[in-house]
Amino acid sequence: MKTVSSRAQKLIASPIRKFFPLAESARKKGVEVLKLNIGDPDLMPPQALFRTLAKLAKLSNFNYAPSSGIELCVSAWQKYYQKLGLKFEKENIIPTVGASEAIQFALWALADPGDEIIVFEPLFTNYKALAALLDVKLRPVTLKLKDNFQLPGAKEIVRLITKKTKAILIINPDNPTGKVWQPREIKEVIDIARKYNLAIIADETYREINFIGQTKSILSYNGAKERTILIDSLSKRFTIPGMRTGVIATTNAEWSQTILKIAMARLSAPTIGQLVTAALLGNARKYTDEIRIEYKKRSAVVQTELKKISGITINQPQGAFYQVVGLPVKDAEDFIRFMLTEFSHRKKTVWVSPMADFYITPGLGKNEIRLAYVLESKKLREAVEILGRGLVAYQKTFKHLNI
Amino acid sequence: MKTVSSRAQKLIASPIRKFFPLAESARKKGVEVLKLNIGDPDLMPPQALFRTLAKLAKLSNFNYAPSSGIELCVSAWQKYYQKLGLKFEKENIIPTVGASEAIQFALWALADPGDEIIVFEPLFTNYKALAALLDVKLRPVTLKLKDNFQLPGAKEIVRLITKKTKAILIINPDNPTGKVWQPREIKEVIDIARKYNLAIIADETYREINFIGQTKSILSYNGAKERTILIDSLSKRFTIPGMRTGVIATTNAEWSQTILKIAMARLSAPTIGQLVTAALLGNARKYTDEIRIEYKKRSAVVQTELKKISGITINQPQGAFYQVVGLPVKDAEDFIRFMLTEFSHRKKTVWVSPMADFYITPGLGKNEIRLAYVLESKKLREAVEILGRGLVAYQKTFKHLNI
Repeated sequence: MKTVSSRAQKLIASPIRKFFPLAESARKKGVEVLKLNIGDPDLMPPQALFRTLAKLAKLSNFNYAPSSGIELCVSAWQKYYQKLGLKFEKENIIPTVGASEAIQFALWALADPGDEIIVFEPLFTNYKALAALLDVKLRPVTLKLKDNFQLPGAKEIVRLITKKTKAILIINPDNPTGKVWQPREIKEVIDIARKYNLAIIADETYREINFIGQTKSILSYNGAKERTILIDSLSKRFTIPGMRTGVIATTNAEWSQTILKIAMARLSAPTIGQLVTAALLGNARKYTDEIRIEYKKRSAVVQTELKKISGITINQPQGAFYQVVGLPVKDAEDFIRFMLTEFSHRKKTVWVSPMADFYITPGLGKNEIRLAYVLESKKLREAVEILGRGLVAYQKTFKHLNI
Repeated sequence: MKTVSSRAQKLIASPIRKFFPLAESARKKGVEVLKLNIGDPDLMPPQALFRTLAKLAKLSNFNYAPSSGIELCVSAWQKYYQKLGLKFEKENIIPTVGASEAIQFALWALADPGDEIIVFEPLFTNYKALAALLDVKLRPVTLKLKDNFQLPGAKEIVRLITKKTKAILIINPDNPTGKVWQPREIKEVIDIARKYNLAIIADETYREINFIGQTKSILSYNGAKERTILIDSLSKRFTIPGMRTGVIATTNAEWSQTILKIAMARLSAPTIGQLVTAALLGNARKYTDEIRIEYKKRSAVVQTELKKISGITINQPQGAFYQVVGLPVKDAEDFIRFMLTEFSHRKKTVWVSPMADFYITPGLGKNEIRLAYVLESKKLREAVEILGRGLVAYQKTFKHLNI
């Protein structure tokens, strides 16, 4: 039989999910696995969600929604953005099946096969997978753990620009680093986009999870508005990733019309997710303020505990709920396997994600791991402590020397 | 600012939805628009849906589902197929966001940019749009209204095969024609696929809506199993298109693994849709038997009423809920505009879809329309009568002569 397409062959298994079988084996051996591998938050969603779902159980219309989105949902997004000082017309806003679909729509609207998008690595891996499927080439600017993932000089971006470059992608606050982009860095990106006539794809999924203040949307910076496609989602903001509720928005009319035609190709986003969006977005602040405080607390716990482990390098996240750790090992994947198959402390171990797959440049991040702080503080403290003990045990096995 | 990608520029507005503004204007003028344009069924979903949603309102876990699907949902599909005599392992079955996403997954798994898929036109337009976005070329075998959309000789398929041909797509029962594929025709497709080592993409979304018996899945024919990717959906079967619940299934292990990696790129299908699937699929027959009888009755009503209109050509649908009508006009789109802007009978008019956009070969279907029978019989009878009156009125305007 025919084999699979080359583009599908390029896909790698998700670094976040690939150790699942090992974690399952550990569990079957009676070891509790503390999961810091995936950005799948443990908090309870807002109470309004359950009231909304109870009402929706009586809804009798499960017809197709309009491809452009259910009016109630679109107008909830519009009002939400208005509160942030961002003005969109209704036809500028199209609800999507999570941010994942919004990313696809943006890439489709902007890029043909072989076209290039400038990104910053380490990078949320779904961008890598979706770009591979859409035959779009990602050209990475490397941000370094030792520099706290700060943007290097503008020329590091400029030197990647070719005739095929269509856009610069910026995720703020960032997954997987927890970096909150500084105004100076954002202005640099906008300046380059303007100078070289590039689009900006801005993923602000983690907008509300910012420990140092409010995230100012890139759209409110001078010169960004007409050239930006905004990607957004309720998944992290309301702890409902399984609902798959996102949005794509741009004030550029030609792009809006194009994105609507793309949306028509998949008919509609799910009705329930759109009506949940309409119900939750109107009164977002109370819940998001609570979770911001909680994640900030957890971040402090993780930092405090990590500082007790010797030989590691850490960044200072200011948002989202991720922490990158550089380990004194050659191969973080080997360490993760060790943690899941050979190590346990009081019948417990920890599952983290290897960072290498979050980079595009081969060889980078081999000794780095990502922690998602999706456990409450006490468990989190314990998890980081176990990580430290595991590291000591691993070093004693001499495995890290690759001999 | 940069313009849009070439692939997105190729997209056309949906023929089913593009007259929406005209229909809205008619409505605002006080004219009731009887909608036969879209395959968006009017029936009530099964009662079990509402019981399930009431239970889900208490669900507190809206975390990401596994990319491979929620166990309950996958196993419901497995059992459903088992009742049809089709054996799948759990890892062969991946729930999707409607059939639309399943189509994308199949095309991604099989085809690279520039690769070709053989299809039969007229063709459900979403295949055209998704193929354009994925840079896959559709090569059409033309089925003709005057032949009741029967398959012409095998050589009409064979002559389209090139080095780039990856698969043959078959939709059974068919949208937009209502054709139920005859076993002889299906065997012909399988024979060609085997001889030329092609995959088969089988879209059986309308499986239960078959007026002449049970639809035998292509997977139960000799030689089809290993080379087929099955696309399926609950949208029509349970009248819940807005829930966006579909599936992709294949017994070919390499494809299954590939499709799982593709599914990982979008993280997961919505939790609620998957749990609704689990609840509804187990006891499908009672509801689908009822709707089959209803659609069969409607088909008879449509046929009876259409036969009273002179000068038209019609096919004999045996499934789904569509009817194609050849009109004695030059340009069916012009007739549709006339119906929505100039004509009404007792303050009512009818909205139908033009067929030209369902064809790939330019120029075909210009005088054809599609009726979706998504109104109850009485309204449907009235709608077809109004269509007939509109046609007479249109002919009197001499517009059909294009002078």
